[in-house]
Amino acid sequence: MHRITATLERIRPLDQQLLAQTQTRLDNKTKPLGSLGRLEEFACRLVAITGQEQPDLSRKAIFTFAADHGVTEEGVSLYPREVTAQMVFNFLRGGAGVNVLARHAGAEVRVVDVGVDHDFENCPGLVHRKVARGTRNFCTGPAMTTDETAAALLVGIDLAAQCKAEGIGLVGTGEMGIGNTTPSSAIIAAIGGFEVAQVTHRGTGIADQALANKIKVIERGLALHRPDPAKPLEVLAAVGGLEIAAIAGLVLGCAAERIPVIVDGFISTAGALIASELHPQVRDYLFAAHQSVEVGHRFMLERTGLRPILDLDLRLGEGTGAALAMPLIEAGARILAEMATFEQAGVTGH
Amino acid sequence: MHRITATLERIRPLDQQLLAQTQTRLDNKTKPLGSLGRLEEFACRLVAITGQEQPDLSRKAIFTFAADHGVTEEGVSLYPREVTAQMVFNFLRGGAGVNVLARHAGAEVRVVDVGVDHDFENCPGLVHRKVARGTRNFCTGPAMTTDETAAALLVGIDLAAQCKAEGIGLVGTGEMGIGNTTPSSAIIAAIGGFEVAQVTHRGTGIADQALANKIKVIERGLALHRPDPAKPLEVLAAVGGLEIAAIAGLVLGCAAERIPVIVDGFISTAGALIASELHPQVRDYLFAAHQSVEVGHRFMLERTGLRPILDLDLRLGEGTGAALAMPLIEAGARILAEMATFEQAGVTGH
Repeated sequence: MHRITATLERIRPLDQQLLAQTQTRLDNKTKPLGSLGRLEEFACRLVAITGQEQPDLSRKAIFTFAADHGVTEEGVSLYPREVTAQMVFNFLRGGAGVNVLARHAGAEVRVVDVGVDHDFENCPGLVHRKVARGTRNFCTGPAMTTDETAAALLVGIDLAAQCKAEGIGLVGTGEMGIGNTTPSSAIIAAIGGFEVAQVTHRGTGIADQALANKIKVIERGLALHRPDPAKPLEVLAAVGGLEIAAIAGLVLGCAAERIPVIVDGFISTAGALIASELHPQVRDYLFAAHQSVEVGHRFMLERTGLRPILDLDLRLGEGTGAALAMPLIEAGARILAEMATFEQAGVTGH
Repeated sequence: MHRITATLERIRPLDQQLLAQTQTRLDNKTKPLGSLGRLEEFACRLVAITGQEQPDLSRKAIFTFAADHGVTEEGVSLYPREVTAQMVFNFLRGGAGVNVLARHAGAEVRVVDVGVDHDFENCPGLVHRKVARGTRNFCTGPAMTTDETAAALLVGIDLAAQCKAEGIGLVGTGEMGIGNTTPSSAIIAAIGGFEVAQVTHRGTGIADQALANKIKVIERGLALHRPDPAKPLEVLAAVGGLEIAAIAGLVLGCAAERIPVIVDGFISTAGALIASELHPQVRDYLFAAHQSVEVGHRFMLERTGLRPILDLDLRLGEGTGAALAMPLIEAGARILAEMATFEQAGVTGH
């Protein structure tokens, strides 16, 4: 746990003066004050996060963490468990949604096996960081041990450090794991003290009866473990997932390294929620890509204080929403770098 | 008026079979059914609009129509009238918001003088289509004559035909004209039968007293002309603007040429509203870039039946919102072209 604590200690509040200075720079650009709305917020935060006057977002990466879930034994998903591994191969061949949308955004996709129940030998392009072959069924015992939870967090922390070393200027989160809306709903129910039915939805598209079962499964898990809502790592170990832990680690690591992070949808936000419960300043380094169709998502966003950028009825995950939001975040950096001032353009100002 | 009528007659409803076939293609891609939300809607509409199985959006253009407004005599704007011409020079040098965001989206900006009160001689890069040196003050007479209104519409219709000839696959609208939120509010008030105060807002950022004056100015104009809400061209001539008419023409022309159009914010939507009142099928060819901060915008969007793509607190105009939405529309085409099917990827389907 020492490296996790050390990472938390490196996370600093944003420099308020840098935020204000950047707003002044924007106010001199040829436009009515504040008229570029949230792009101006993005620009200010990018400068304050990175400490760079002109944040360099030329290199971008989306991390798609893949892992399996013991709770799929309870029939919580529409798809069989082997789809997780099948989709990993799809990612590596570049045929999945996140690949298409990341190419479109000029970002790399890095596929990380943090817990898939499949042996990926000699698999070029895959980041091999398997902690376990999936979690255990949280209806019968904790999903992860304390050690597994810490190991999965460290995967994310390591990858953030690597991004810093490589000069990656913008990171997106993503995931693949059949069944993983179930632990995500369990996490927000436990941390936020919500009724399970309030924060549980259809995932890949289950029908009413399966949804009722999914709610009962989560209720059973939470009744069994009764995790302390004030101890996010206890919640994560009891009912979470390896990819969710890795995302939490990536988010913490990026905040420590001063790299802006775009958090994808429901499952990614579960990871970001754990991170922001561990350290309140983490949220300043985050951008919420979109508002998911999953009903529990808005409770997570409210608790982390993040306002989603897009609302396109997405519910695919993988990092697809993060890829779509990337050009919008970048647009903030570009107006700061490229727009003329009133003086430069000879335009009568306000 | 003959060419306007001929353009209206060429606008056809979308082919429902093509929409359904495209949805089936999307349903075979490696993702839960419908999980890419509005991107799927974009993909289906792009195919049905263009009639192309793989819509080619590699060439994109944003038209920024510039014009002046006689009603600025009434003190409706924060900025002096000469800023319209000053901003045209800023557009031509590439320093304005729309230039930055269009470059980011891989789109060209075409700046059209349709009615600026300035003599742009030898001005490389400017599209010279001046109809008049601004409108007249609608508090004292009609903003435009019937002939001027038709001429400005034809500017847009001509430019749409040129896009078709050049193979431009996606068009965005934009505008610049000091004072032009005033005619835009007047148009939605007249067509929708709203109280002026309901649909009138701060434009570039006027204070309470100036807003009260702006509302009175619009009320005086509408009381003077009493345009028939069922006659959109009468409303346009009475209280509209040359750039708004050109946008209406561009929208009509693109619908006739089967080119998808992204409508920018408040003023552009006033143009699109005129077009969609002239022909109900026009809306099928349109994408609403964003929800503007201007309060009247949502009434326009409701009336045209368009759901905005972005909500980023924008209120700059120029085509900036259209530029930001372009990559999202393109993303729809890319998932259709590039995502693997369940069969191709060897993934167990639904």
